[in-house]
Amino acid sequence: MTRLDGRVERGNRTRQLVLRRTVDIASVEGLEALTVGRLAAELELSKSGVFALFGSKQELQLATVREAARIFTERVVRPASEVPAGVGRVWRLCELWLEYSRGRVFPGGCFFYGVIAEFDARTGPVHDAVVRAQREWSARVERTIEEALSAGELRTGTDVQQLAFELVALLETANALSVLHDEETAYRRARVGIAERLRGVAVGEVPVPEIL
Amino acid sequence: MTRLDGRVERGNRTRQLVLRRTVDIASVEGLEALTVGRLAAELELSKSGVFALFGSKQELQLATVREAARIFTERVVRPASEVPAGVGRVWRLCELWLEYSRGRVFPGGCFFYGVIAEFDARTGPVHDAVVRAQREWSARVERTIEEALSAGELRTGTDVQQLAFELVALLETANALSVLHDEETAYRRARVGIAERLRGVAVGEVPVPEIL
Repeated sequence: MTRLDGRVERGNRTRQLVLRRTVDIASVEGLEALTVGRLAAELELSKSGVFALFGSKQELQLATVREAARIFTERVVRPASEVPAGVGRVWRLCELWLEYSRGRVFPGGCFFYGVIAEFDARTGPVHDAVVRAQREWSARVERTIEEALSAGELRTGTDVQQLAFELVALLETANALSVLHDEETAYRRARVGIAERLRGVAVGEVPVPEIL
Repeated sequence: MTRLDGRVERGNRTRQLVLRRTVDIASVEGLEALTVGRLAAELELSKSGVFALFGSKQELQLATVREAARIFTERVVRPASEVPAGVGRVWRLCELWLEYSRGRVFPGGCFFYGVIAEFDARTGPVHDAVVRAQREWSARVERTIEEALSAGELRTGTDVQQLAFELVALLETANALSVLHDEETAYRRARVGIAERLRGVAVGEVPVPEIL
C-alpha cells in the first residue's frame, strides 16, 4: 500500500468511526446536536481533523442521514427482499421494521422518526435529504404491496397507497410510543393491526403467527 | 386597582405574550430552541424581565408545554365533548384533531408530535411533562371509545385500547407526512382509515361524510 492509499484508508476508517457515533447521537438528541467540537472531544480527534473529513456541520448532518439510511437498508429492506414477493414479504418487511425499532439499532429508536420531526417544518438540504429518505421508505412499502397484488395474493382493487399509509402509521406509532413510554405493548398492538389490515385484503391465508 | 395588582396583571400579560411565541417556535424548531436571550430579543423585552417571569430555561419549556396543552384542549378536546357520547363523538374528536393539525394551530403542525420526538429518549421534568400530555391524550381517546361502547354503539368485545392505538396512529401519521411533504393527501387517507376502523366495530351506521 502506498503512503497515499494509507492516508485515504485511515481517513475512511475515521469517517466511519465518526458516523457510527453521529447516528447514535442524532437518534437521541437530533441532528442539531452534531457539532464538530463535541465529536472531536468525544472521539479524541482534533477539530480540524473532523472538519477535514466533513467540511461543515451541514455536511456532517447529511453524511449522518446517509449512514442511517445505509444501516436501515441493511437491517430492514435487504433481508425483506430475501423472502418471495407476496403477502409474506409485506409481513416480513413490517416485522423487520418493528425488530429494527425494538432492538434499538439506534439508541433513540427509529432514526428517521426523530429527524423527520426535527426538520419537517424547516427548509434546506438536510430537510430535503430527510424528505427523500421518507419518500423512499413509503415507496418501498407501496412496491412490496404492489408485488403482492401482482402475485394475485391481494384482492383486485386493493388501494395500495391507502394500505401502505396505514401500515406505516402502525409502525411509526409503535416506535414513538415505545420510546416515549419505555414499554413493549405498542409493538404488539402494531402487529395485531398489521395482521388485521392484511387479512382484510388478502385472497388466501396471511402467513402471520397464530397468536395474532 | 392597586399598584401591586397592576404589576401582577402586566406580568401575566407579558407571560401570555411570551408563551404565544414560545409554542410557535417550539412547534417548528423544538423546545431546545427556547432560549431566554432569543425571546428577549424577538419580543423586545429585557433578558432579566423574561427570567423574572419564568426563572429558568426549563421552567420556560414546561410553561410552553402547559400552554400548548391548554390550546389543544380548547381546540380539540372541549368541542368534541359538546356532541353526545357515542361513535359520533369518537369521529368528531378525530375530525377536530385533523382540523387542528391541518389548520396549523401551531405553525409546525401538531405541537406534541415534534416535542415527543425531541424528548422521548431523554430524562427529566420536560420529558415527564411530554409523557404526561401524551398519556392524557391516549386516555381521552380510549375514554371516548368506552363511552361509545357503554352507549351500545360498538360491538361487545371491541378492544378499546387497540382501536385507540390505531386511531392515534392514523392521526399522528397524517400530521407527520403532511408537514414533511407539505401536502394534504395524508389527511384524506387518515379519514378513510378512521371511518373504516369505526365501521368495523360499530353496531349501527357510522355518522361520517358520504364520500368516505
